[in-house]
Amino acid sequence: MAETYRIGLDVGGTKVLGAIFDGERNIVHRLKKKSTEQGAEAENVEQVIINVVEELLDSSGIPLDQITAIASSIPGVIDQNAGVVLFTPNLPWRNYDIGSAMLRRFGVPFFIGNDVNLGVLGEYRFGAARGFRNVVGLFVGTGVGGGLILNGELYTGNKFKAGELGHMTLDPEGPLCGCGKRGCLEAFSSKQGMSAYIRKQVSRGRGSLLAKAVQEGVFKSKKLKKALLAGDAVAMEAVDRACHYLAVATGSLINIFSPDLVLYGGGVVEAVGDTILEKILREVDDYCMAEIRSTVELKNASLGDDSVLYGALALMEEQA
Amino acid sequence: MAETYRIGLDVGGTKVLGAIFDGERNIVHRLKKKSTEQGAEAENVEQVIINVVEELLDSSGIPLDQITAIASSIPGVIDQNAGVVLFTPNLPWRNYDIGSAMLRRFGVPFFIGNDVNLGVLGEYRFGAARGFRNVVGLFVGTGVGGGLILNGELYTGNKFKAGELGHMTLDPEGPLCGCGKRGCLEAFSSKQGMSAYIRKQVSRGRGSLLAKAVQEGVFKSKKLKKALLAGDAVAMEAVDRACHYLAVATGSLINIFSPDLVLYGGGVVEAVGDTILEKILREVDDYCMAEIRSTVELKNASLGDDSVLYGALALMEEQA
Repeated sequence: MAETYRIGLDVGGTKVLGAIFDGERNIVHRLKKKSTEQGAEAENVEQVIINVVEELLDSSGIPLDQITAIASSIPGVIDQNAGVVLFTPNLPWRNYDIGSAMLRRFGVPFFIGNDVNLGVLGEYRFGAARGFRNVVGLFVGTGVGGGLILNGELYTGNKFKAGELGHMTLDPEGPLCGCGKRGCLEAFSSKQGMSAYIRKQVSRGRGSLLAKAVQEGVFKSKKLKKALLAGDAVAMEAVDRACHYLAVATGSLINIFSPDLVLYGGGVVEAVGDTILEKILREVDDYCMAEIRSTVELKNASLGDDSVLYGALALMEEQA
Repeated sequence: MAETYRIGLDVGGTKVLGAIFDGERNIVHRLKKKSTEQGAEAENVEQVIINVVEELLDSSGIPLDQITAIASSIPGVIDQNAGVVLFTPNLPWRNYDIGSAMLRRFGVPFFIGNDVNLGVLGEYRFGAARGFRNVVGLFVGTGVGGGLILNGELYTGNKFKAGELGHMTLDPEGPLCGCGKRGCLEAFSSKQGMSAYIRKQVSRGRGSLLAKAVQEGVFKSKKLKKALLAGDAVAMEAVDRACHYLAVATGSLINIFSPDLVLYGGGVVEAVGDTILEKILREVDDYCMAEIRSTVELKNASLGDDSVLYGALALMEEQA
């Protein structure tokens, strides 16, 4: 009997990652494409996904009939059971049955999961969170996402909408968040929140290596790393502030969940995770009960950019 | 065969409630005693519990050999599996194996659970939260306690310490909380928090019907009700402020859990719950995502003072 494979996809607002896993959970082929590459408009993200799958098959020489399942992360609100994308802020789908469309196209089961949920699930099954029964995951990137492993299983709540940890209110009079509320964790600690802080400082006449990057958008995580290494004071302040609020949020989450692990991941953590973890550890005890703090570990994710792909693999294994 | 019964106890810092349940889950006898009654010192809470059980048996005429189990709530951190009280702020036990002591005394299994956890469990199994799969419970009394039903089961986290929802930070520069942090939900919305607010207003020369009650402690919930009915402006402000922060916390909890129900209980809700729920409902939409808010209900507990007793019953049924 020929060996079988699974395909995992990580669909983001700007890029699509794809990987073929063999039966031993090794990634034997991988691919990265911009979501808007090849003239595809936002409407054609689905075509980009199809292209990624087909190119993975072409370049690996693995025929479609040796693929047993495909799973993809979606950055938004989804119905995981039905395979339907209910709503995503950065992609054009609304109540779109991507699962059925892909099943028709490739003839194999197609599963979807929320991107941060899958990231935490990947770390739980195959990465830094392995062996921890209750895990609170905070993923710091353009936004701040969250994922929850409770009693050894991904917790998704009513309609798979749980885990919006980036939208805990930490200061009702704080800065405006993209979600419309004030003082969310995300408004302080995401790349958006840090960029807004730097933009404000620059507008007050202060210099920063990230001044140009934040002019009309958010900095890239790698640029933040460079700025910190160069001793950029404004960038450091933005990170200090982000970590302060991450510590406050972590404290509350520890009191709420009494988790075994709080896990930090995402692009920012990938780039400057040691600095961030150190700063959070220095403050977090002030924001939770010592009794509960004593049994929780804090650490960074270990699968980097692959955590979501591995989460997709875990999803396929659970559904199999 | 003779009918069998179970005894549920609700042990608080100041009082012990006891009830005998028959096989149809009816309370056939009940009793209430001050924890410090009959000359008992704090050290003798155990003796009060024994007295409550014995008086329940005496007054009901039910012999001990028809009792199949006893379960009690404990206001503190416990090891539910081992029946050991690890720590309680208001009682003298520390790492005390109350379960074994009571088994020796009465010869029947003796279970313990955290008091707020049992309150939420009681409402989930027999009260207002019945039929809801994911429930966030907020109990407003002297403090603010929390309990979580997730995927249809009591979630207790690592070492049964989860659910300290009263110690979410809502304002890192807010008033000092009993736990040592600043700006916890409890510091704003508990009887302690409201009493501190009223005390401060009175010290500034304002009048309040609760002025005397808060002089060196916290008001009683019934007195709060009277003050509100009499149009006491300072009391109303304290409640408004408490409800504002309950709404902020509820919004964060909705974003975190995507629960099916947020349930409010405890002495304050028992006394002035309609007012509180109305105020929270007026504000909560400002503090959570509309997408998640759309599938969660908010309501008050229905079992009143008996919710913990029914939680003790649920605990015995689960362990049986």
